Amino acid sequence: MFSLFARPRLANTGFLRIRGTAFRYLSSSHVRLTSRAVVYSRNGDPADVLSVATYPSLPPPAPGTVNIRFLLSPINPADINVIEGVYPSKPSLTYDLTDSGKGSKEEPVFIGGNEGLATVTSVGEHVEGLKVGDWVVMVKQQVGTWLTNKNVTVCDVVKIPDREGLTEVHAATITVNPPTAYNMLTDYVELKEGDWVMQNGANSAVGQAVIQIAAARGLKTLNFVRNRDDISRLKEQLQKLGATQVLTYEDLADKALRSRIKAWTGGKEIRLALNCVGGRETAMMSKFLGRDAHLVSYGAMSKQPLSLPTSAFIFKNLTAHGFWQSRWYLDHSAGEREELMRSLAHTPQHEIVSIDKQDNDEEATRQIREVFKILAAGRHGKKVLLKFKD
Amino acid sequence: MFSLFARPRLANTGFLRIRGTAFRYLSSSHVRLTSRAVVYSRNGDPADVLSVATYPSLPPPAPGTVNIRFLLSPINPADINVIEGVYPSKPSLTYDLTDSGKGSKEEPVFIGGNEGLATVTSVGEHVEGLKVGDWVVMVKQQVGTWLTNKNVTVCDVVKIPDREGLTEVHAATITVNPPTAYNMLTDYVELKEGDWVMQNGANSAVGQAVIQIAAARGLKTLNFVRNRDDISRLKEQLQKLGATQVLTYEDLADKALRSRIKAWTGGKEIRLALNCVGGRETAMMSKFLGRDAHLVSYGAMSKQPLSLPTSAFIFKNLTAHGFWQSRWYLDHSAGEREELMRSLAHTPQHEIVSIDKQDNDEEATRQIREVFKILAAGRHGKKVLLKFKD
Repeated sequence: MFSLFARPRLANTGFLRIRGTAFRYLSSSHVRLTSRAVVYSRNGDPADVLSVATYPSLPPPAPGTVNIRFLLSPINPADINVIEGVYPSKPSLTYDLTDSGKGSKEEPVFIGGNEGLATVTSVGEHVEGLKVGDWVVMVKQQVGTWLTNKNVTVCDVVKIPDREGLTEVHAATITVNPPTAYNMLTDYVELKEGDWVMQNGANSAVGQAVIQIAAARGLKTLNFVRNRDDISRLKEQLQKLGATQVLTYEDLADKALRSRIKAWTGGKEIRLALNCVGGRETAMMSKFLGRDAHLVSYGAMSKQPLSLPTSAFIFKNLTAHGFWQSRWYLDHSAGEREELMRSLAHTPQHEIVSIDKQDNDEEATRQIREVFKILAAGRHGKKVLLKFKD
Repeated sequence: MFSLFARPRLANTGFLRIRGTAFRYLSSSHVRLTSRAVVYSRNGDPADVLSVATYPSLPPPAPGTVNIRFLLSPINPADINVIEGVYPSKPSLTYDLTDSGKGSKEEPVFIGGNEGLATVTSVGEHVEGLKVGDWVVMVKQQVGTWLTNKNVTVCDVVKIPDREGLTEVHAATITVNPPTAYNMLTDYVELKEGDWVMQNGANSAVGQAVIQIAAARGLKTLNFVRNRDDISRLKEQLQKLGATQVLTYEDLADKALRSRIKAWTGGKEIRLALNCVGGRETAMMSKFLGRDAHLVSYGAMSKQPLSLPTSAFIFKNLTAHGFWQSRWYLDHSAGEREELMRSLAHTPQHEIVSIDKQDNDEEATRQIREVFKILAAGRHGKKVLLKFKD
């Protein structure tokens, strides 16, 4: 097992900053608020359907349950798909946040989010192995993590076993993206030091984890990203993380690319490609795979199908797989999960969006919708985490 | 191992008959001819570029070689792709058929065909294990099999070990299609009696072999074919071979199909699909696969790419493979190949196209081009074999 603790931290907490524009999340009113949640009552564009709702403090936890307070909750691409209603995992409606309004029996809501780090604030009777102050992450899928306080059964969460050296950002993002990267690099092709891996969407959270884990294992990476104004800055950032080569999708059309790749790899065939884009770019990237290669898809950001020439399957013995970390958790034992957690530790490039206690629901809703507009525009390249400030 | 010898033979030798039209291959001239070959000197539509050429009898075989006479040579879809120049395996030019004209040093040609049954007519010195009258099939790829007489080294051919019960059609078609069907049904999913397999192009030679081998193993098959005027007759034929259900690609659009399939399978998920079509029909067929399924492609008759939703890979754990029997032979030992041959024996629906000795090259060329026009129109559904008549 390896650790990435020693690698330089590119963490960039603070304001959500995109292409030089800073969006400031400051309070404009001084309403006294208790608990908050980012909720929606129908599927659609998150920038249209999300709202921030306020609800009272939780009652003491029932036996076998604990109350937790979320410290940080990532906004993952899959969370957006869930809100849009196009994801196979569906959340359940919540109707016990309040007696009236959003989250009540009359007006049930979905709470956004699937991943998150929380701290235990109160422990019910007959609970073993958890105490106040422990850090926990979700194991149950789609329970909602974009909120302040929550009551959960002990089976819905797992304690972070070894907090030492872990930042909040580490712990909050440890259950989805790093394991996705780690398992895709491990489960399909036996890679030895000096072997090459190819990926698109290389500046996504998973992509960055792939770069870091690959570099730590002595693997070379050929990374594709979308072209942008500040492309040289992005290339530099990814190279600092450990990327061997960074190219844009436009480079895929370059007729000299094949010989450039050959020069980089010394003619060694590339046998693993990781894909979160789909569509034309993926077909073009796959042309640079060697024989007996594996193409592993974990996302489809282009919303285009995976379209590949049948000849690649028949004559080059390409195999196409899909990877879903949720299924991995279901298929593996508690021991294997804990083992995985121990072998993963890296901090992605990230930004924390804080919802201030002083902002009223209307103001907070406006802010949260603005975040999703920015995320929908793409090219952000940083993991965004939600924090409800005390 | 199993044998399909006992199954009813649907062999339909005779004239090439398509949709009621009979094309008669009769001599119109009485030129005295010796050896013949179907040749081409440039890539293109077989109906445009193929010619029949005459060449003199072979000299006695050199040491380590044998002269063989072809008894039957299949016309496989891949052969057409080779002539078109779009197949990865390339034939070599032949320039020693004659002293002048087609097949000479001045006018080298490619000889068509990759598979074929031949009988040994003459044995050179230092040849062991082959005698006059033995049946042999090709192991070397793309040496050309659409001809009468050929000189080959002993390594280019393998003797059919056990001729008993084997017809000429059996033996001539044993190296490509039945092994393709057999290996695709064996190598990807562990299927138990009563399990279902899905395939398109079900009336291709491989498709028919899949139906027969599956039926012999107690597997159920869901078969898709193109719609046609005499669809009920085709369904009947495939059911006689052992097909459980036969549907057309048009049925794929039927909204009730999912519940019909569920009723047939008793809700058992289908985990193996075999594809020789590609394009839209394959994407639609794949929707009816269950979780953890494998889609194995061995052809792309639609000439459209394999285009599948990424979600099928990620959330249903679909894996897409390609199968190429030529690679299988390279990857397996002589013992494994012989074992495979022993476990395969079935006669596909077929038609034999004979080139009569009396027909001159011009007339024979006209006839052979007519055959390829018919094959290009598709929907033939029978394996066509070439025979040069004495």
